[in-house]
Amino acid sequence: MILCVGLNPAIDITYRVDRLAPGEAHRVLDVRRRAGGKAVNVARGVQALGVAVTTLLPLGGLEGADVEAELAAAGVPVAPVSVQGRTRHTVTVVDAGGEASAFNEPGAAVSEADWRSIRTSFAARCAGSAVVVLSGSTPPGVPVDGYAELTAIARAEGAQVIVDATGPALLHALDAGPALVKPNVAELAEVCPGLDTAAAVAALRARSPRTAVVLSLGAKGLLADTPDGVWRARPTRPLTGNPTGAGDAAVAALAVAHHLASPAGRLDWPVALRQAVGLSGSAVLQPVAGAVDLDVALALAAQVDLRRLDLPR
Amino acid sequence: MILCVGLNPAIDITYRVDRLAPGEAHRVLDVRRRAGGKAVNVARGVQALGVAVTTLLPLGGLEGADVEAELAAAGVPVAPVSVQGRTRHTVTVVDAGGEASAFNEPGAAVSEADWRSIRTSFAARCAGSAVVVLSGSTPPGVPVDGYAELTAIARAEGAQVIVDATGPALLHALDAGPALVKPNVAELAEVCPGLDTAAAVAALRARSPRTAVVLSLGAKGLLADTPDGVWRARPTRPLTGNPTGAGDAAVAALAVAHHLASPAGRLDWPVALRQAVGLSGSAVLQPVAGAVDLDVALALAAQVDLRRLDLPR
Repeated sequence: MILCVGLNPAIDITYRVDRLAPGEAHRVLDVRRRAGGKAVNVARGVQALGVAVTTLLPLGGLEGADVEAELAAAGVPVAPVSVQGRTRHTVTVVDAGGEASAFNEPGAAVSEADWRSIRTSFAARCAGSAVVVLSGSTPPGVPVDGYAELTAIARAEGAQVIVDATGPALLHALDAGPALVKPNVAELAEVCPGLDTAAAVAALRARSPRTAVVLSLGAKGLLADTPDGVWRARPTRPLTGNPTGAGDAAVAALAVAHHLASPAGRLDWPVALRQAVGLSGSAVLQPVAGAVDLDVALALAAQVDLRRLDLPR
Repeated sequence: MILCVGLNPAIDITYRVDRLAPGEAHRVLDVRRRAGGKAVNVARGVQALGVAVTTLLPLGGLEGADVEAELAAAGVPVAPVSVQGRTRHTVTVVDAGGEASAFNEPGAAVSEADWRSIRTSFAARCAGSAVVVLSGSTPPGVPVDGYAELTAIARAEGAQVIVDATGPALLHALDAGPALVKPNVAELAEVCPGLDTAAAVAALRARSPRTAVVLSLGAKGLLADTPDGVWRARPTRPLTGNPTGAGDAAVAALAVAHHLASPAGRLDWPVALRQAVGLSGSAVLQPVAGAVDLDVALALAAQVDLRRLDLPR
């Protein structure tokens, strides 16, 4: 079982308009709504790869009930933690040329009581989970070391932890020794200002030597600096499409690889990285953010240019 | 009792951002939600003037329940008509300079069964209402002569009808003989293309001689061409603020004037137009769209430059 945790879930709304003209009133031509957030995207990816998954989401208000109902209808298991604030929306406005402008609500503040409920539910769910994935932003009220706290709880229950976070939350989480973190280039630069990419990855690795750093390079694939070695995985052809959720697909594949490797131990990084780049590419090719296609993913995975960058130990 | 009907109610969401940059992701700094739509704004204006009001709104889904709960909490009476589709949102993005970009969802389609329910509830409510106000856009599925049909039903029940509609719905409604229509300049031009303002107003008056045409001139006040005469009402000082809902406030004051005049007959147009310009101005000065302030409205009404443009008959 893989547990996907999203502390700041959302209802993602997409508006289609002819043209975005600041200062004007726009007739929305088409409205799509989808229960979203990175944890939900990761869960959909894990499901596509055939592994059992549960999402743990703090949900509140009518919007929270809506997320729960939609995920249930879509067959994505959800363990809701009832919180006081209403679940947020994100709004993405897409014009006729495909240009997307996103408006991301911060999320309602999490109270101390909410945060206690979240930790309690989380600890109970960790017991039965081989891998725990912590994804995305945190709403106001979650302490800056909240992901570190959850990482420590999960590790104490014997789970491997993957963290997809940014800024101080990422640095604090590293200190709690997760199995893997997955920043992209901008997120890496944010936490290691002034360092080039190689030095920044090395700095993260030095901060937590047991943690694999898998750097997402967007259309250029992944760089994995791990306790077992360093690899570069690169798609052999450029893909055009909707990159939203591509990073979450990569995380899903990496979570599945960790799940399959446990409890035996050593993870097959070349296989894991091929799958991650393939599933990520299939997400780009799907028009709906966060959706993936397993057949496409397998075909893309077979074409990945995979190289070991260090000497095998 | 005044009945305010809005066939396309909405939850109005306002996002504050630093700067609207098309193609980018925006952190929303502040989120405000409010049950809205023009009929609700008119009802708030009527309440501010101390007259009993009910809103009749087709509502559906979790969003519909949300509108009902919020209006109940705000003390705005609502007669909901349960419909299949979910009540829509509108999203307005306001930047640090106060520039507003609006994204208006079209609304869920109204089924034939929904439309029957709406007419039935409407007819039942008209019996006890001296004035009926029909405001705003109609969702897909409402026939183009839907407002005309409702106007005929209301008149048959003895109510006076005010219509604030646009395009073909406005022209059809005129044919059913409402007491008043209130286009703005752009809406007038849309239904009378190629005519100057005076000719266009005359064309509407000719189409329904018993109907008063009150033309909203924005910051320049109102022009009223009525069966009783022609008047021009102009604010004596320019106001800066949020013009959203200012037209609805004017409609509210005109509805109250019709209510006070019934059943005795003649309406005191100079008083009605002063109140309309004053309440409208107070809406501009309120930061929240659709809100009004009675004290401010009375002070502004006293300053209105009001002139009769024809010879008294």
